[in-house]
Amino acid sequence: MARLGIYLIGARGNVATCTIAGLHALQHGLAPATGLVTATEMFTETELANLDDIAIGGCDIVATPLEDKARALAEDRGVLPPSLVEKLRDDLRATGAKIDRAVPFDGNGAPPGGYARFADTFGSTLAAFKERSGAEHVVVINLASTEPSIPLSDVHKEDVSFAVALRANRTGIATQSMLYAWSAFSANASFVNFTPSQANDVSALAMFAAKQKLPHAGKDGKTGETLVKTTLAPMFRGRNLNVTSWLANNYLGNADGKTLSEPEARKTKLASKDEALRSILGTGTHLGTDIGYAPDMGDWKTAMDLIHFEGFLGVKMSMQFVWQGCDSALAAPLVLDLARLVDRARRAGESGMLDYLACFFKSPPGTKIHAFAEQLALLESHAKLWR
Amino acid sequence: MARLGIYLIGARGNVATCTIAGLHALQHGLAPATGLVTATEMFTETELANLDDIAIGGCDIVATPLEDKARALAEDRGVLPPSLVEKLRDDLRATGAKIDRAVPFDGNGAPPGGYARFADTFGSTLAAFKERSGAEHVVVINLASTEPSIPLSDVHKEDVSFAVALRANRTGIATQSMLYAWSAFSANASFVNFTPSQANDVSALAMFAAKQKLPHAGKDGKTGETLVKTTLAPMFRGRNLNVTSWLANNYLGNADGKTLSEPEARKTKLASKDEALRSILGTGTHLGTDIGYAPDMGDWKTAMDLIHFEGFLGVKMSMQFVWQGCDSALAAPLVLDLARLVDRARRAGESGMLDYLACFFKSPPGTKIHAFAEQLALLESHAKLWR
Amino acid sequence: MARLGIYLIGARGNVATCTIAGLHALQHGLAPATGLVTATEMFTETELANLDDIAIGGCDIVATPLEDKARALAEDRGVLPPSLVEKLRDDLRATGAKIDRAVPFDGNGAPPGGYARFADTFGSTLAAFKERSGAEHVVVINLASTEPSIPLSDVHKEDVSFAVALRANRTGIATQSMLYAWSAFSANASFVNFTPSQANDVSALAMFAAKQKLPHAGKDGKTGETLVKTTLAPMFRGRNLNVTSWLANNYLGNADGKTLSEPEARKTKLASKDEALRSILGTGTHLGTDIGYAPDMGDWKTAMDLIHFEGFLGVKMSMQFVWQGCDSALAAPLVLDLARLVDRARRAGESGMLDYLACFFKSPPGTKIHAFAEQLALLESHAKLWR
Amino acid sequence: MARLGIYLIGARGNVATCTIAGLHALQHGLAPATGLVTATEMFTETELANLDDIAIGGCDIVATPLEDKARALAEDRGVLPPSLVEKLRDDLRATGAKIDRAVPFDGNGAPPGGYARFADTFGSTLAAFKERSGAEHVVVINLASTEPSIPLSDVHKEDVSFAVALRANRTGIATQSMLYAWSAFSANASFVNFTPSQANDVSALAMFAAKQKLPHAGKDGKTGETLVKTTLAPMFRGRNLNVTSWLANNYLGNADGKTLSEPEARKTKLASKDEALRSILGTGTHLGTDIGYAPDMGDWKTAMDLIHFEGFLGVKMSMQFVWQGCDSALAAPLVLDLARLVDRARRAGESGMLDYLACFFKSPPGTKIHAFAEQLALLESHAKLWR
Repeated sequence: MARLGIYLIGARGNVATCTIAGLHALQHGLAPATGLVTATEMFTETELANLDDIAIGGCDIVATPLEDKARALAEDRGVLPPSLVEKLRDDLRATGAKIDRAVPFDGNGAPPGGYARFADTFGSTLAAFKERSGAEHVVVINLASTEPSIPLSDVHKEDVSFAVALRANRTGIATQSMLYAWSAFSANASFVNFTPSQANDVSALAMFAAKQKLPHAGKDGKTGETLVKTTLAPMFRGRNLNVTSWLANNYLGNADGKTLSEPEARKTKLASKDEALRSILGTGTHLGTDIGYAPDMGDWKTAMDLIHFEGFLGVKMSMQFVWQGCDSALAAPLVLDLARLVDRARRAGESGMLDYLACFFKSPPGTKIHAFAEQLALLESHAKLWR
Repeated sequence: MARLGIYLIGARGNVATCTIAGLHALQHGLAPATGLVTATEMFTETELANLDDIAIGGCDIVATPLEDKARALAEDRGVLPPSLVEKLRDDLRATGAKIDRAVPFDGNGAPPGGYARFADTFGSTLAAFKERSGAEHVVVINLASTEPSIPLSDVHKEDVSFAVALRANRTGIATQSMLYAWSAFSANASFVNFTPSQANDVSALAMFAAKQKLPHAGKDGKTGETLVKTTLAPMFRGRNLNVTSWLANNYLGNADGKTLSEPEARKTKLASKDEALRSILGTGTHLGTDIGYAPDMGDWKTAMDLIHFEGFLGVKMSMQFVWQGCDSALAAPLVLDLARLVDRARRAGESGMLDYLACFFKSPPGTKIHAFAEQLALLESHAKLWR
Repeated sequence: MARLGIYLIGARGNVATCTIAGLHALQHGLAPATGLVTATEMFTETELANLDDIAIGGCDIVATPLEDKARALAEDRGVLPPSLVEKLRDDLRATGAKIDRAVPFDGNGAPPGGYARFADTFGSTLAAFKERSGAEHVVVINLASTEPSIPLSDVHKEDVSFAVALRANRTGIATQSMLYAWSAFSANASFVNFTPSQANDVSALAMFAAKQKLPHAGKDGKTGETLVKTTLAPMFRGRNLNVTSWLANNYLGNADGKTLSEPEARKTKLASKDEALRSILGTGTHLGTDIGYAPDMGDWKTAMDLIHFEGFLGVKMSMQFVWQGCDSALAAPLVLDLARLVDRARRAGESGMLDYLACFFKSPPGTKIHAFAEQLALLESHAKLWR
Repeated sequence: MARLGIYLIGARGNVATCTIAGLHALQHGLAPATGLVTATEMFTETELANLDDIAIGGCDIVATPLEDKARALAEDRGVLPPSLVEKLRDDLRATGAKIDRAVPFDGNGAPPGGYARFADTFGSTLAAFKERSGAEHVVVINLASTEPSIPLSDVHKEDVSFAVALRANRTGIATQSMLYAWSAFSANASFVNFTPSQANDVSALAMFAAKQKLPHAGKDGKTGETLVKTTLAPMFRGRNLNVTSWLANNYLGNADGKTLSEPEARKTKLASKDEALRSILGTGTHLGTDIGYAPDMGDWKTAMDLIHFEGFLGVKMSMQFVWQGCDSALAAPLVLDLARLVDRARRAGESGMLDYLACFFKSPPGTKIHAFAEQLALLESHAKLWR
């Protein structure tokens, strides 16, 4: 089997640390494949890349040693099992040592040296990773912090105009995530956006990916509350129960939570969260979604939802749920899944935004299907084509 | 459109009272069709019986006036809206007056006068209802209290041997629900079992229904916690999350709750409840299901479920949900749905146990599909055939 | 026993309707005294006014018939029992007919005709109520909608300067609630502020009450979530458990909820809510309190609190609670309690802000004690003095 | 300050491991005193034993190395912080090495060699511990698994008759916990029973303690759900809200949970749990308490309580709470507290069952006070006497 390379943007973050530790643990047979969708029956004999044939690397703007990060996660109510972290110490040190140093954009939101140089440098970095890891194909996965959105204009409509603008270094036309996606496509790598940032969800980038005959996917990993919401909401709809209000609270304590305690960032995130529910329940439901930062929660996340619905003759009933998940542990196996699936798609000659991967994302472009069970049925149908 | 007759066994119980009040309210345009699956888009142009073309009646062993029952439900935190009950007073009185008096089995679990006579009498009762209501087709729906199960033997395997045994009045071979189903089929009526009693889920009865070319359905309406469970469990399975325990508590206060506070009755119910979860999650999950009787809860039901699951690398997470539903209000529209669907099936020439109605039941015989979304997809496919 | 008159500001609101209906029900022996603190053992032989010796009345700016209001509450999941409302129809009509029409302030927040005239008119209204009801003593209780706060200045420090300013009709120096309190004291009536409005919690008013030798109490009835918070927080403190965050959500659907969905009004309310917790837990706890308006919730209120705490060696644990209360039903008996207690205090010759009534309020001026059990012990000690 | 020795029965169990690790951590300044009641202001200048002047030891029937136990707790979602366990490795090894091997009773529930010899041997063991640790006073604390109760007879009424029976080795008259208490008193040590076993809650033992002028305390540490229950129930009572049902579920996964999944053991535990609530709420409340064993929960415990109550005019409301605690971490600091308090009592010349320690126990003999706030006030009053 040809070797697959996973290149993580934000490779020293919590999700990345879990992904890297987890891949090593799986390769050493130290943990079962729990949480990997690609380890379910659905993918038997679909010729996904073997876990043993995967190399992992990436870049980050910080330099925290990976094994320190892993220990901190172990200390945070066992996001990683403490004993596993000890066993993986050498692997984490070795993989961590090879993580590239990412170049951050400056205070004006521009890359030092200009867009084109940033793209070129990243292209070389990817090439070096490919060479070093012996990978036949590289999937770049964006796990960096959520960026503020920038307004899109004509320049973003077509790949050619965008390329021209990049080369002309026109101020404010590209975010970091867009640039990583662009550079990945240039370097013949596939791209997955696991964050709510714009990245590849821009017409110019989609067009470029299509020309390069590369598959890509996104955006915003569906790991927790939205997963539950898009599972439960179709139940109410299927029973013709009238959901009059869905009041949702998300509490989280990590860097993501801090970012989201800013009203602007929160607004983007909330819109994305409400969109899924709205599309399933229609406009008659009063949606009240909020996100709160609780610094003591670390990498854990609690969602508390209160759902009011009317049944027969208008009788008012309610349902609550509380989801207590560990965000990184929920995201990490999906990162491995997406890499394997996008890689398989490329080998099958597929390109463009892979809409059958909708079940992995909060805001999958190119599909209106948000109900999780329907999304899963879509994935299953596609998996059959690969046999 | 030909007229449909609904005949309820247990016509003065809570579910029946809600069903009757609701049908009248819908016919008078006093309430929206919330809660009726058959009022969703799925059934557009499928030629179901119009709500206006439905006559409703039934029998009960008690004689409580229907309007008193309805008022009590209004008083119980609005199971029926108090103002609606006032508006429907005359209808409730009129329909209530025509409810037949059911003959209860005696202390030895046998009908006074023997099985055959019971069946004949019920046949005449049904014929009278059909005549009186101008119905072209009658659907008998069992809403009576859950019975203890009886052991099945060779006698129950074939309709012929069962018929012989009935006529010979062999002690202990038939429960009330079986006898109602048998009599319904004899009288050319369809049958739906909304309770966990054995009724039509017996080989001899299924065979008889087939011979009579009648459709039937069951068993045990999926109204609350099991609905949620069979919606959520596939989510965990779909994400390959390892559900290590699912601890469920059901509290209820009505007659059903009292019956279920008896260890024997509870055992049957719990087995049925666990079966659905087991079939979705497999044997690795520790299931702890319990039912508690809280007399102060009236017709309301609260389910509190605590779910523990392992994600990537074994990290332990949890989810809880609390479902606060009004049992009768959840069941009543499904009773109307089932009557319309079984009626439509008969008009389409279908007979036997209708497995595509699985989404309405906790224990649908003849199918292994318990995941609610899959059941709903099955129903949708079938509805398309009726267009 | 001398007759007690209760005069409600906002006499056609939900709380007032429940209070009036409840008093009539208790006087007719149609309901037990559940919810009345003054019906507990603590008050045996303390010579509180008999419920039969209480007359109730009040004023409102709206004219909705009281029996319509009561019916609407019955329809809202039984805030009042539907059958009770029918039985009380005549009483509600009779009492409702005598409710005075309140004069609202104009758009500039001033009474038409000036402060002095407003006060005089209200004085005459109170005198008429006293005469009509045969009451020896009147307790005015503010149940009107929460007002925005006004800034306090020198004018509010002393009763004399405030009286001068009122007579001079100086713009913006008095809110409606302050004016009602002032007028009540002028008319020799006691005053209770059940809302978060400023009312009698102003130095000039306290001074005036003292001069008039009148007792008064406030502010902001402690009916739901704060009651639970001030009961639970001392438990954590008593066990030296470090509450690192207390994340609270309050959802409500009534007029109060709508008012509080305005950021300004919410801010005042939230500050008041956090104050109690802060005083018990200290500054080390991250408090995240929010209020959400869910129009479908009617008079019902749900609080969902998530509490994180650290125990021995820093181990992180959590507790959640969900409070599903009916606001008016929780408040109404406390209104009767407060009238009886303030009346008893006056007969005992007590005057000024009654700090031993702290257990009834979210923001009791003149005491730092917020722990509910301590507040209750305080009340119990005082009750003993009355024997 | 004279040195205090703590001798734990069940010294390799989870609670003991946390207690020992915690004491070492506190002595090294590696953790704050969170969770210790004796570290609160209430005990300023009450001359409790300094934490630095405490020696800890004990006995167990198993031999698992203490550091292995501590590591397993670290792995179980951080019951002990993983990094702390590493730092304490040497201390745990040293203290663990000195833990005595306890002699288990045989299959007939009798000590090999007879009661008297068991008592003598344990007396010598205690003397050796005292000598070795330089303690002036030893407090023996029972942390062993809950035993089945034995029936009490005349023999248990007085210390003299019990002593005679012990020496005569009369079959079945003493449980292990009774014998430990007896031996402790013989050896001039104080005794605390942290479990629901009978131990010192037997007339003969109380009499012996009194003669020996030794203080003692018990029984069954109030660490979780009962703590919350006895905090919340008085709130309902104080507001005259009629609690119609209190439905409680306790899920736990440790050895204690396994023991309690046995119907007999559960019955004893549940009776004890209901007793507290019953004493506060009276007989009108429907109590439904259950305990479930969920092996995946490890040392964590979740209580899910559903409380229904009636307010004014009978309106039905509800409250739920979910307590997610780590049992050992909640118990361990109380073990240190109790040792310090009992030791202080002895130095103050107090003897007998210390009823002012009721706040630490589910079933404190000798007091009817179960409300936590009242119990705490009692403790505070007593602490003042020590200044």
